[in-house]
Amino acid sequence: MTQAPTTPPDAQHFDLTALPAAARYKLLTATVVPRPIAWVGTLGADGHVNLAPYSFFGLMGSDPPVVAFAPGDRADGTPKDTALNIPPGGEFTVNMVSAALADAMNATATDFPHGHAEPDALGIALTPGVKVRVPRVAAAPAALECREVQTLTIGRTRIILGEVLGLTLRADAVQDAERHHVDTAALDLIGRLGGRGTYAHTRDTFTIDRIPFEEWQKGQ
Amino acid sequence: MTQAPTTPPDAQHFDLTALPAAARYKLLTATVVPRPIAWVGTLGADGHVNLAPYSFFGLMGSDPPVVAFAPGDRADGTPKDTALNIPPGGEFTVNMVSAALADAMNATATDFPHGHAEPDALGIALTPGVKVRVPRVAAAPAALECREVQTLTIGRTRIILGEVLGLTLRADAVQDAERHHVDTAALDLIGRLGGRGTYAHTRDTFTIDRIPFEEWQKGQ
Repeated sequence: MTQAPTTPPDAQHFDLTALPAAARYKLLTATVVPRPIAWVGTLGADGHVNLAPYSFFGLMGSDPPVVAFAPGDRADGTPKDTALNIPPGGEFTVNMVSAALADAMNATATDFPHGHAEPDALGIALTPGVKVRVPRVAAAPAALECREVQTLTIGRTRIILGEVLGLTLRADAVQDAERHHVDTAALDLIGRLGGRGTYAHTRDTFTIDRIPFEEWQKGQ
Repeated sequence: MTQAPTTPPDAQHFDLTALPAAARYKLLTATVVPRPIAWVGTLGADGHVNLAPYSFFGLMGSDPPVVAFAPGDRADGTPKDTALNIPPGGEFTVNMVSAALADAMNATATDFPHGHAEPDALGIALTPGVKVRVPRVAAAPAALECREVQTLTIGRTRIILGEVLGLTLRADAVQDAERHHVDTAALDLIGRLGGRGTYAHTRDTFTIDRIPFEEWQKGQ
């Protein structure tokens, strides 16, 4: 931990290049929040469905629609089942996590040994994908069906990029299907915060209007 | 919009490969939430600091610490200033947005013409970076200092990956500097939801304990 001279007195600087990985993890996961949670479903070679949550995850584009997530390694340094199950061009589902699904999602974060199928072990109902062979979580209020387009490795960071081919929404969250209006509040999604198991609801919301440049000029 | 036969009756499927980009954008931004907001600072060739918010953003690793964000193109198809200002190996700051900074952040999303320096125009105080030449937002409760390590283009999606070299936190959010404990609540960050300008606070939180495999087995 470094106190840099250029830092104002009411701020503290951490030189991440001089800190161990565990410290960097603690600092960054507590600071880059709220993170959406990708509850990723994959299909193993044995036909079992693997389900695991990742909050190193983001929406990265819509033309084409791209999501990125980073499945880290297991404690012993081997890739997690999720990564093993997504070869180049491989398929996966990203199930979004509602407050009602928080406990089930957390249970799939248990360090099951390789070969344990979380949905079976935990009684999580699945339903077939439309665009991919990987099932989605039946109770997920939103599920993205994806195909890997690129996988990057930067040090021990593995980032999987997927094109989103299809989206399934709980019917009561579709406000206007023709105009593609979604009732985000009805999804009741949660976000990941820092710390061992801290999450935020998305129920306390507010709206700010975007300011067009012409309008901003008039206000000057 | 497609209603697929394999979709259960209480769900609605959207075939994203058959929808225009604007529809995909509306559906996905309303569904992949809450997204953390990267208020990205860059330095233009003219020495002006550019500041713009992106919620196509995520933490992607801690070994090395990596963030990814996707600055889209302007409406006319040219890259946004943020992307122009980050050449290979280029530097940028990711300022996290507290509720108190929401209006200032939103003002920098105004479509200022190229060359307009948002911080000057809007009176947003900056302070020097420690590890990079790009300043950070003085009032940001957390700021990441980054260096570009890779830029990807997938269709019209441009994804910039940066290594996080340094982290500056508001002093009162540092619970225990030696143990790297951050008081996330003190940061009072906001997340991006769908719709034109809807955001979520991170004040309504809850905690779930991770279940170790041995403990799970005992419960069976």
